[in-house]
Amino acid sequence: MARQERAIRTRRAVLEAAAKVFGEYGYSAATVSDILKVAGMTKGALYFHFDSKEALARGIIEAQVEQLLPPQDLKVQEWVDQGMMLAYQLPRDPVVHAGAVLSSDPLGREHYGSAWPKLIERSVQTLAEAKERGEIHGHVVPQQTGELLASAFHGVQLFSQLEVGLRDIEVRVSGLYEHIMPAIATPAVLTRLDLSPDRGARLYAQIQPQDTQQPAPVATAG
Amino acid sequence: MARQERAIRTRRAVLEAAAKVFGEYGYSAATVSDILKVAGMTKGALYFHFDSKEALARGIIEAQVEQLLPPQDLKVQEWVDQGMMLAYQLPRDPVVHAGAVLSSDPLGREHYGSAWPKLIERSVQTLAEAKERGEIHGHVVPQQTGELLASAFHGVQLFSQLEVGLRDIEVRVSGLYEHIMPAIATPAVLTRLDLSPDRGARLYAQIQPQDTQQPAPVATAG
Repeated sequence: MARQERAIRTRRAVLEAAAKVFGEYGYSAATVSDILKVAGMTKGALYFHFDSKEALARGIIEAQVEQLLPPQDLKVQEWVDQGMMLAYQLPRDPVVHAGAVLSSDPLGREHYGSAWPKLIERSVQTLAEAKERGEIHGHVVPQQTGELLASAFHGVQLFSQLEVGLRDIEVRVSGLYEHIMPAIATPAVLTRLDLSPDRGARLYAQIQPQDTQQPAPVATAG
Repeated sequence: MARQERAIRTRRAVLEAAAKVFGEYGYSAATVSDILKVAGMTKGALYFHFDSKEALARGIIEAQVEQLLPPQDLKVQEWVDQGMMLAYQLPRDPVVHAGAVLSSDPLGREHYGSAWPKLIERSVQTLAEAKERGEIHGHVVPQQTGELLASAFHGVQLFSQLEVGLRDIEVRVSGLYEHIMPAIATPAVLTRLDLSPDRGARLYAQIQPQDTQQPAPVATAG
C-alpha cells in the first residue's frame, strides 16, 4: 500500500473511532484517550492527523459535507438527491451520523462549527440553478426554501431517531419531499422527479468505485 | 379570591417556576429545591399540586397540549391554526417552551412522556375531518401528514432557536405551511387559507377573556 493511501486510511479510521465515541458519550464527555482506545493506535498517529478533540469534530463535520453525487438532467433532481443520499447514509455511516449529531449540539457547535451552513449553501446554490433553468416556480426564494428543507429534514431525522432508531428515515425524507415539491417544481418537472425512498440506495450504488463492489480478494500465502 | 381560583393560580405559578428551572438547567440537573426557590413557596404548597419532579414535567407537557382555538369555516384552517398558535406561544409562554424542550429530550421523555403523541393525534383528527369535507386531496394520508408536520415543525423550531433565539419562529412556521399546503389542500381551499406569520397573534388576541385585555384594576385602600 502506498504511503499516501495508508495515510488516508489511517485518517478515516481515526474519524470513525471519534464518531463512535462522540456518538456514545457526547462531545463534552468524550476524551482523546477514549478515541485512541477505540481506534487502537498511538497518540502520535492520531495527532499527525488531528491535533485536538475540536479538530476531530471539525474533521467529522467536513467529512459529512463531502458528498459525491452523479449529475442529473434536472437540477432540482440533484437538489432532492442531496437529501435522499444523506437519508441513506445517516443510519449506515457512523461519520455522517456523528456529523449530524455534532452539528445540532447547541453548546458544542460554538467551538467546532456545524455542517448546516455548508449543506444549506450547496442546497441554495442548486435551487438557484434550477430556478435559472425554469424548473422551479419564479416565486421560490432559494435561500428560504433551502433553510426550510434543512430544518425540516433535521426534525424528520430526530423524529425517526426517537421513534425507531432511524430505521424509517428514508421513507420519512421521501415523504418530506412529496409534501414540499408541489409548492416548488413546475407541473411538468414534478412528474419527472424521482422522490422514492430507495433513491439514496441507488445513487450510493452508482458512485461506488468498481473494485469495491466486487468481493474482497482472498489473501494468498507467499 | 375564591379558594378554587387561588389553587389554580398557585398551580400555574408552580408550573411557571418549574418551566424556568427546567429551561435553565435541563430536566436531569434541575431539583425540586431549585423550583421552590424560584416559585417562592413552601414544599407543602408545591407537593399539594405535584408530588415529584416527574409530575411537574408531566404537568408542563399537559399544559402545553391544552390549546383553545376559535372554530373556523375550514377544518384545514383549524389545522394550520394549531401550529401558528404554537409558534406564537413558544417564544412568549415559558410553560409552552419548556413543554417543547422536555418533549424532545430523548432521555427524559422515557420517564415523563412527551406532548408529541397528543399534538399529533389532534392534528391527524383535524386532517381527517378536513378530508371528509373534501378540503384536502383524496390521496393525503392524515397520519403521515400529521407526523410530517410535527417533525418538520420541531426542526424549524430548533433552527430558529439556534439561529436567533426563536425571534423568527412565526415567519419560519408560516413558510413551512406555505411549502406544504399546495400538496395537501385543493386549489379552491388553498386561496382561502390564512398562512400569514401574524396569524397566531390574532388568534391569541381573540381567545383572551375580555377582562384580561383591559388594564389591571388599580388596588384601592380598604
